[in-house]
Amino acid sequence: MSTSMSSALLTDHYELTMLQAALRGGVAFRKATFEVFARHLPDGRRYGVVAGTGRLLDALRDFRFGERELAFLRENRVVDEPTLEFLSGYRFSGDVYGYREGECYFPGSPILTVEGTFAEAVLLETVILSILNHDCAIASAASRMVHAAGSRPIIEMGSRRTHEMAAVAAARAAYLSGFGSSSNLMAGHLYGVPTAGTAAHAFTLLHDSEKAAFQAQIDSLGAGTTLLVDTYDVAEAVRTGVELAGPDLGAVRLDSGDLAEVAYAVRAQLDELGAHKTRIIVTSDLDEYTIAALAAAPVDGYGVGTSLVTGSGAPTAALVYKLVARQDEEGVMRPVAKRSVGKPSRGGRKYAFRRLDGSGTAEAELVTVSGDRPEGVRPEGDRPGGIRPLQAELVRGGEIVGAEPLEAARERHRRSVAELPATARQLARGYEAIPTVFDE
Amino acid sequence: MSTSMSSALLTDHYELTMLQAALRGGVAFRKATFEVFARHLPDGRRYGVVAGTGRLLDALRDFRFGERELAFLRENRVVDEPTLEFLSGYRFSGDVYGYREGECYFPGSPILTVEGTFAEAVLLETVILSILNHDCAIASAASRMVHAAGSRPIIEMGSRRTHEMAAVAAARAAYLSGFGSSSNLMAGHLYGVPTAGTAAHAFTLLHDSEKAAFQAQIDSLGAGTTLLVDTYDVAEAVRTGVELAGPDLGAVRLDSGDLAEVAYAVRAQLDELGAHKTRIIVTSDLDEYTIAALAAAPVDGYGVGTSLVTGSGAPTAALVYKLVARQDEEGVMRPVAKRSVGKPSRGGRKYAFRRLDGSGTAEAELVTVSGDRPEGVRPEGDRPGGIRPLQAELVRGGEIVGAEPLEAARERHRRSVAELPATARQLARGYEAIPTVFDE
Repeated sequence: MSTSMSSALLTDHYELTMLQAALRGGVAFRKATFEVFARHLPDGRRYGVVAGTGRLLDALRDFRFGERELAFLRENRVVDEPTLEFLSGYRFSGDVYGYREGECYFPGSPILTVEGTFAEAVLLETVILSILNHDCAIASAASRMVHAAGSRPIIEMGSRRTHEMAAVAAARAAYLSGFGSSSNLMAGHLYGVPTAGTAAHAFTLLHDSEKAAFQAQIDSLGAGTTLLVDTYDVAEAVRTGVELAGPDLGAVRLDSGDLAEVAYAVRAQLDELGAHKTRIIVTSDLDEYTIAALAAAPVDGYGVGTSLVTGSGAPTAALVYKLVARQDEEGVMRPVAKRSVGKPSRGGRKYAFRRLDGSGTAEAELVTVSGDRPEGVRPEGDRPGGIRPLQAELVRGGEIVGAEPLEAARERHRRSVAELPATARQLARGYEAIPTVFDE
Repeated sequence: MSTSMSSALLTDHYELTMLQAALRGGVAFRKATFEVFARHLPDGRRYGVVAGTGRLLDALRDFRFGERELAFLRENRVVDEPTLEFLSGYRFSGDVYGYREGECYFPGSPILTVEGTFAEAVLLETVILSILNHDCAIASAASRMVHAAGSRPIIEMGSRRTHEMAAVAAARAAYLSGFGSSSNLMAGHLYGVPTAGTAAHAFTLLHDSEKAAFQAQIDSLGAGTTLLVDTYDVAEAVRTGVELAGPDLGAVRLDSGDLAEVAYAVRAQLDELGAHKTRIIVTSDLDEYTIAALAAAPVDGYGVGTSLVTGSGAPTAALVYKLVARQDEEGVMRPVAKRSVGKPSRGGRKYAFRRLDGSGTAEAELVTVSGDRPEGVRPEGDRPGGIRPLQAELVRGGEIVGAEPLEAARERHRRSVAELPATARQLARGYEAIPTVFDE
């Protein structure tokens, strides 16, 4: 954290030894195409959400081997001098295409395509997968929670349950998928995610009485603040809170017990005290299922921590980065694929489209290895119906051309998930919401 | 990644609003004691492993609010001007005690104790928990894998399955728990973790034939390299590998199929070809259970990815940071505890000891709120038997005094887990290996 850092060493050792061997063997500069895709979604999930592309473009920009990185590689004899020489001038000069952030994806969707020389493209595997596997996992879980919550806002508050930098990326991914805000200040600083929060139990315990704590909080943060009311006795705390703040008390937060039961009791008490507008926020190990179970309860907002940052049972997205085509000894691009048992891959550069019916509902993910667009393709933005291309240009000749505001990704996700059949938004375990159709 | 960064914004919004309200209310400088502990271990686990303390001390050193951080907080009206003024001069000046890295822990073990003013200690909650919850989760899973592998080495190769910086911390935590090496170059650079790796399927696919790929790898990395032999046909690849490298071929790696069955076949083939010393390394979604299931198979080493970086089902350690004592209005330190349903906490600063029987096997975790040491306490390092104190001084008056080499933590873990009863090392779900005895 304390020093400026290149992303170049966020890389597996073997990417560099492969580079060394390829340089020596004279094949390092063969043109190559790598694709990122998931062989399957997490068990029972109906769609995935693309997230992390913006962070990935930042990491690509910072992927340089400076003096410190080269010194480390030399001292530890990771690679030989010709390879270090290559790395010292490394700068990705190829092209990257991909699904835009917020877009839904399915098994086999080619969510990222990297085209360049083998040498320049192979080096990016680790950092690309790290970013996408994490951020897609979080965004995919977050999207389900947002739909479970309906119109009620959710605050992301899981920073303390995951790695300190993963926390920042998780807050970004959750916001992209529709969370209203995050507790994480760095996510506000780096990505403009709205941040929120008021007080923890420690604040109440710090004071000689709960009343003194509430008075101090109201004095400083105003009557519109959210008071945490379960440190001692909930009913007494609610009474004290309304007594001190009046009916303009912004909200009370419940963080323990049977949340539905307590919410009903607290709503009745608030109404009786005339605090009809005081909202009830619930937290405490919520996930999409417990959020859904509270749909009928008088709850005005949710705070979600652990289950969000751990992907609600699927902390990684199982995305892989596979070589699908490369030049042969005559310089001709050839599709390639391994035949490993249970892990087959499809050779050739893929093109992807989403087919929509006349009402604008998605019917299929079309994946083709021919560059020809299927019939009926319409320009992006022209809705509904027809066939929508899914890949956009992100990097052209090493220059980043696909950066966009996080708000654009958030809006895209809203549209992308709305376009899926209604079954996609069911929480129950099921199959992919639409089939992936390979046209080979 | 591109800019030098303080750790100060790796913090929940509410830590700062609590600070603001406490400053205004005049209670911010009450002396306070916070403790980090787990109410429970992940389901079925028998011990936890302390990890992340070294990283935490780095984050503490870098926890400063500079101009950029203050500008963000001001522009977004997170806190008021008096609070910004306090933050601009923030520097932790208190004391920190804790279990040393590598030590085993149990429910209620006070693995970290932070003493200072409420103002300075409350701000550290988020970053402390982020680091410890992540690193302890990974180290705890890693320790089980190391014991499942017995004397066979394990390489950590999960970087691509987790956030890019979490990957570095995961590599560090895995090494601490006994993994032999990692694929992650940044973990080598930052923490001196040995790194390793040779080639992926992409390297074979890059070449016009598997033979050409193996030849290129051997030419560059030597006959002692590890060839990945499952891109096409394993038996053919093994034959080709030994043909090209001779009996000095270092190792072959199997990454698909029924690993035990394939390993037996490959071992027989290698022996038949005279490559008796060529080792067999297996990878492919291994966890502690599949590692154990391969105990009888002719396997010489394991590579573990996804399950390591996701904590093998427990990606976070459920550690909390609780205010346990603070000064009252007369300046007297008072124990405090919340009474939330299902989430009780014990008031008062805790002291922790491990009681060992005459043979040096751990019998109990003793946790007391009195500063008096239990009878029979012996100095650290004086083994076996007796009562071993578990907390060490890490920060004194704001100065870091507890930094130590990662190798020391690794060695400590080896001793700490060896000291537990044999049941601790069983993989099957069970209860804590020793009881936590609270003496209140």
